[in-house]
Amino acid sequence: METDKISDAKLIVDRDKCLVNIEYMTHKARKNNLIFRPHFKTHQSLSIGRWFRQYGVDRITVSSIKMAYYFASDGWEDILVGIAYNPREYSLYEELSHRCRIIATVSCPDTCRVLAKQCRFPLEIMIKIDTGYNRTGIRWDDIEGLIECIKQLRTNSRIKIWGLMTHDGSTYGLNSREKILEHFESSVDRICTTRTNSGINDLIISVGDTPSASVAENFTGIDELRAGNFVFYDLMQYVNGSCVFDNISIALFCPVIDKRPHSRTVVIHGGAVHFSKDSIQINGRHVYGMVVTPDNTGWHKTEDEIYLSSLSQEHGIIDCSTNNLLDEVMPGDLLAVIPVHSCLAADCMGSYTLTDGKVIDHLRQSSYDSEFSLLYR
Amino acid sequence: METDKISDAKLIVDRDKCLVNIEYMTHKARKNNLIFRPHFKTHQSLSIGRWFRQYGVDRITVSSIKMAYYFASDGWEDILVGIAYNPREYSLYEELSHRCRIIATVSCPDTCRVLAKQCRFPLEIMIKIDTGYNRTGIRWDDIEGLIECIKQLRTNSRIKIWGLMTHDGSTYGLNSREKILEHFESSVDRICTTRTNSGINDLIISVGDTPSASVAENFTGIDELRAGNFVFYDLMQYVNGSCVFDNISIALFCPVIDKRPHSRTVVIHGGAVHFSKDSIQINGRHVYGMVVTPDNTGWHKTEDEIYLSSLSQEHGIIDCSTNNLLDEVMPGDLLAVIPVHSCLAADCMGSYTLTDGKVIDHLRQSSYDSEFSLLYR
Repeated sequence: METDKISDAKLIVDRDKCLVNIEYMTHKARKNNLIFRPHFKTHQSLSIGRWFRQYGVDRITVSSIKMAYYFASDGWEDILVGIAYNPREYSLYEELSHRCRIIATVSCPDTCRVLAKQCRFPLEIMIKIDTGYNRTGIRWDDIEGLIECIKQLRTNSRIKIWGLMTHDGSTYGLNSREKILEHFESSVDRICTTRTNSGINDLIISVGDTPSASVAENFTGIDELRAGNFVFYDLMQYVNGSCVFDNISIALFCPVIDKRPHSRTVVIHGGAVHFSKDSIQINGRHVYGMVVTPDNTGWHKTEDEIYLSSLSQEHGIIDCSTNNLLDEVMPGDLLAVIPVHSCLAADCMGSYTLTDGKVIDHLRQSSYDSEFSLLYR
Repeated sequence: METDKISDAKLIVDRDKCLVNIEYMTHKARKNNLIFRPHFKTHQSLSIGRWFRQYGVDRITVSSIKMAYYFASDGWEDILVGIAYNPREYSLYEELSHRCRIIATVSCPDTCRVLAKQCRFPLEIMIKIDTGYNRTGIRWDDIEGLIECIKQLRTNSRIKIWGLMTHDGSTYGLNSREKILEHFESSVDRICTTRTNSGINDLIISVGDTPSASVAENFTGIDELRAGNFVFYDLMQYVNGSCVFDNISIALFCPVIDKRPHSRTVVIHGGAVHFSKDSIQINGRHVYGMVVTPDNTGWHKTEDEIYLSSLSQEHGIIDCSTNNLLDEVMPGDLLAVIPVHSCLAADCMGSYTLTDGKVIDHLRQSSYDSEFSLLYR
């Protein structure tokens, strides 16, 4: 990579590190007899999707029907739409079902009632179960809600209930492998209890979060693994122990545009529109990214820990109160930043540059994104 | 607008409200003999830019050189690039200078030194002054830093120092018109002192933040107004008193995808990739948007105050603990949400739908965004 040729913020991907991550997770899934259905909402890239194919991956998860169409356009034929079904998109599901296997997700009895009335084609369904994250889905111990979902879905013989899924995102905020494991075990216990309560013993159990998928070795009770973030990992995953530094395969390269001795800060052209605004707490302070040193093959750690301490729309502020960065850089120098949440940074940036300089696609900046509504609506 | 035809999250713009806002600010600038140079980073839309032209606006501010090229492609001929100059983009500035008036911003002596060495074309310069926001620029009382900037710039006779600018974003977080006014007056005092210290009395003074521009009536000492957010306003501006509810000209329409009686929440398909993650505190709680009721002509307030209480990548969670929304909506219903920060929501969404159903451009989803690097680098 010729860093001299980079003039503004670029999202750099280290393909070799991605492949290590993909191989690791693929191997782990295979060893544990799990269906591996990685979540492609992290990368949203046809090019990166093809890297998964090399390892035999042929089923995927996506987070919108548009994303399902994007990957179907590249030959993916078994797609779970992991976000709860939106009745306004019925005809998009129907149309796509003629081209590939499509599994929809439902998460409340009302949706099941609506879908059962709408559905005129054979459709497989995942029921979303809330095992503690408290975001979406039927609460794991809400037997009444679950039975009502099943009852509603069964009023339409074209619908087949395929499984129960959970995404227990609580693990992202934990700060040790032990806590992640403990949480994961409780989550699996809960969703297995839910299956027992459903009275349908052949429902598959599908789990999703990257921290659990990274840390756990025992997947007893689970049939399917949907992790996605692991392809890049990020600062959050590094801090919670899901990965080591060398697993992080993504960094934002940004130019220095200001040096401020009075506040001991360095300013980069890289802000909320590049990183998004996810933050984590490190040593009691909000942090928006970790500064590392770019080089022609990628990036490496700095001696001190240096962090982005705040973000506005276009600006990123680097706290230099406990390091020498302020004296070491000049306006126009490039710094690399490990984002807090790679999925959101990728969505903001809308394309990737590989360490060899090649640019690859992300749904956001593909022509598909703007053309989708013309093509299908 | 036929809301029945909206199937997924759409960013709706009420053109009439925008025009009221544009007319108000244009008139205020004219009445006070100010150069009006609105910041187009908020809307990033050629179509919306043309609405400004109807009111005689012919100078603009942008936040990246790419954005400058985008608006130059639509005939804008007097463009201030409001973000601090990045030496890696020298040739882009030079090329654009052949097509229109381009003013660059510098914010530290080191940048001035580099730019003075690079510059081979006539270039006007704004020096960024920090009047209290503590983000970028020469601190207002740092006479030494300012004099060093001027000295460096004067080593190159092609460079002309045009003015001093401040963006005092501290006002965004204030919670009353009185506090905004007080802050504004202090900010103006400070930058005027800086001009005196510079020894160059014909430098223009340029100010930027929307809260001050909205609330202030006395602009003595100021030559140029660069506000941008006022074209849409948003929840933050409504809460700090910069606008009334009917000035807010933007809302995200999102489908309901889950209803959760146990947690008394409603879930919409509208998350961090749609809103970004900016939040404000209301009644001691973090809030990511205000829920309003969509109708065929736009939206109107709900009886109770209803807020988005959290966001993940694709999901928005609406707190229904103190309202009846949970009983009133069904999956597939549309809700409208006033975003906390309209600039970031617009950047996330990448296009607009007007209340008459017409879709208009945003730089993000324009082909220009992906083609820029091919065209100019």
